[in-house]
Amino acid sequence: MENFTHCIPTEYHFGKGAIDCLGDCLARYGSRVLLVYGGGSIKRTGLYDTIIGICNDKALTVTELSGVEPNPQIATVRKGIALCHSESIDVILSVGGGSTIDCCKAIAAGYYYKGDPWDMALAGGCQDRSLPLVDVMTLAATGSEFDADAVISNSMTSQKLDGTYRCPDVSICDPTYTFSVPASQTAAGSADIMSHICEQYFSRVFDSDLSEAIGEGILRSVIKNLPQALSDPSDYSARANLMWDSSIACSGIPAYGKIPTLWPCHAMEHELSGFYNITHGVGLAILTPRWMRFILKKDTSVTPRFVKFARNVWGLDGNDDEALAREGIEALEDFFSSVNLPSTLTELGIGNEHFLDMANDLKEVTGGLENDYVPLTIDDIVAIYTACL
Amino acid sequence: MENFTHCIPTEYHFGKGAIDCLGDCLARYGSRVLLVYGGGSIKRTGLYDTIIGICNDKALTVTELSGVEPNPQIATVRKGIALCHSESIDVILSVGGGSTIDCCKAIAAGYYYKGDPWDMALAGGCQDRSLPLVDVMTLAATGSEFDADAVISNSMTSQKLDGTYRCPDVSICDPTYTFSVPASQTAAGSADIMSHICEQYFSRVFDSDLSEAIGEGILRSVIKNLPQALSDPSDYSARANLMWDSSIACSGIPAYGKIPTLWPCHAMEHELSGFYNITHGVGLAILTPRWMRFILKKDTSVTPRFVKFARNVWGLDGNDDEALAREGIEALEDFFSSVNLPSTLTELGIGNEHFLDMANDLKEVTGGLENDYVPLTIDDIVAIYTACL
Repeated sequence: MENFTHCIPTEYHFGKGAIDCLGDCLARYGSRVLLVYGGGSIKRTGLYDTIIGICNDKALTVTELSGVEPNPQIATVRKGIALCHSESIDVILSVGGGSTIDCCKAIAAGYYYKGDPWDMALAGGCQDRSLPLVDVMTLAATGSEFDADAVISNSMTSQKLDGTYRCPDVSICDPTYTFSVPASQTAAGSADIMSHICEQYFSRVFDSDLSEAIGEGILRSVIKNLPQALSDPSDYSARANLMWDSSIACSGIPAYGKIPTLWPCHAMEHELSGFYNITHGVGLAILTPRWMRFILKKDTSVTPRFVKFARNVWGLDGNDDEALAREGIEALEDFFSSVNLPSTLTELGIGNEHFLDMANDLKEVTGGLENDYVPLTIDDIVAIYTACL
Repeated sequence: MENFTHCIPTEYHFGKGAIDCLGDCLARYGSRVLLVYGGGSIKRTGLYDTIIGICNDKALTVTELSGVEPNPQIATVRKGIALCHSESIDVILSVGGGSTIDCCKAIAAGYYYKGDPWDMALAGGCQDRSLPLVDVMTLAATGSEFDADAVISNSMTSQKLDGTYRCPDVSICDPTYTFSVPASQTAAGSADIMSHICEQYFSRVFDSDLSEAIGEGILRSVIKNLPQALSDPSDYSARANLMWDSSIACSGIPAYGKIPTLWPCHAMEHELSGFYNITHGVGLAILTPRWMRFILKKDTSVTPRFVKFARNVWGLDGNDDEALAREGIEALEDFFSSVNLPSTLTELGIGNEHFLDMANDLKEVTGGLENDYVPLTIDDIVAIYTACL
């Protein structure tokens, strides 16, 4: 087992009616709230009115920043920071999914950062000091409610940068808020959860028992609950499991005791959605099985890990390890198809024009994947993108 | 899935050499340290000298409180609080196992508590305000390094009270410090870990997938790693797994989404060790299989849970559910025997003289077990104690 440090001080409230604590949580930090949300779905569902009601009851002054993009843009972060200064904001309230909360993490840290927030993003984020951040989640996907990561995009440079900020102070996760999430987004969010686990599970360390159990447990849970949530969007148990799975999947906990990987599919996907603004989970669903096939072919010493994946996640069995390894990958691919996730970049209208640019940019931004679990060169990355056509 | 709140702000450093951060962690809170430890094993292992060296390097002033009992006494808590006041302590440093850290949690909260700390313990603990607490763990057992609980005893009243205080600010868990733990204590600590899981796992809620996976994963991990640690006390991987398992087992995380139980075996064991000062984990190893047999007989509707336990934890199989349920319990009992844990109270020199007193005291202190997973009356509790003879 490898060393690790755990520190997630977030106060995490889970379940139906969890929002009851919101007023007290906000009031703890002051009276001036920056309410941040996305495209307005919270107005359709009534959550917006609930939140405004709670803020009024506590006599909180609310300033709004709406229209956070699905891949949140640095321009929106700058706008939020300016509002925090001009309105003397005490606490930021994120209502939405991972994009909204990521935007808020960057606003909260950027408020104290000396310089332009894109420089902060280029420097890998900032954990020094932050405005208090409370979030109400409406999507099970990124797990940003229970970690310190945020991904910020810059449409001017076609870049998407993963950085480390501060964990939210309070996260409120009510699975009923995800009932209205459309099937396509529910599936994409679940692909994101599964990818978070795969990025940590596929490692050469096998002896970190609890991490193995958590990784396999979350994958099995998504495989069970996603189809249930799709066939009955108001299935509380299915939605609740997906929501808690998503929070833990990206918390770092499933990797404790293992050698950290470079999260290769996320690195490749950030390029894809940086260049084409596609849904993150869709990009991951397309990339992940191709990456698996590629590394299994490139380095057969990883076969035992794929065999374990096939057995413990998919319940497959057999004596031929190589066949079993391939069958596990096929099972994942079939699962993504069964929940109607796109399976090729071609379907998304993406051709091979920028594959080399993307691979080069990945190298420039992240340092590349040549020291990963299975090392990947620029050519390898282009080959994986190509296999996604 | 049931609602839950998670909040463990502890900064948790795990692995070989994790103590490297101790000096900085202590200095964060001030310069005057109360070093608390037990019977002196840390002097034999050299850990004491390491810690004094670290404190000297940081120019910290150290006051010592040694001799914390295996079931920490309120008298020691009072002594610690007095020292914190007289020596103007800034931060408490616990070095040892669960007893030492529990004692420190009560000292840290008792420092600010208005009144006698036994009143605080009788009131269920106190979370209002605490002196900063840093711990260095030398035992994998209670998980006190990653939760807010502490158990304090009072030899004057033969009582042992579980209370909620504040989580440690920093926990340092280096598995190499557990290499020197004797076989009997290693086994008792592991029985404690397993009991923590059983107290949460045996519930009527089955749909909290991640909690099920974590509970079963930790049990399988202890079953695998405890024999390895016993046959080679310096097996890092085995010791590391037991240590991380212990931290998560008692954190509350394995119960998220489930209906809270009353931790019946712990309630019964606290009476046992309150009356007889036996090792907590030994009491649990004797009680747990007897409790299982009793509730399975009393209420056959719990059979499916025992079947799941038999299959997913012990890898047993078969078509006869009742037989399978019993075989799972036998497997647990056999496992405890195989690691040389006492299997009867008689072996410990305990007779039936106080069983009724203990059951009555349990009812007085905790409110009883009549609303538990399977309700237990005073007579039931006496019957379970009697089955342990």
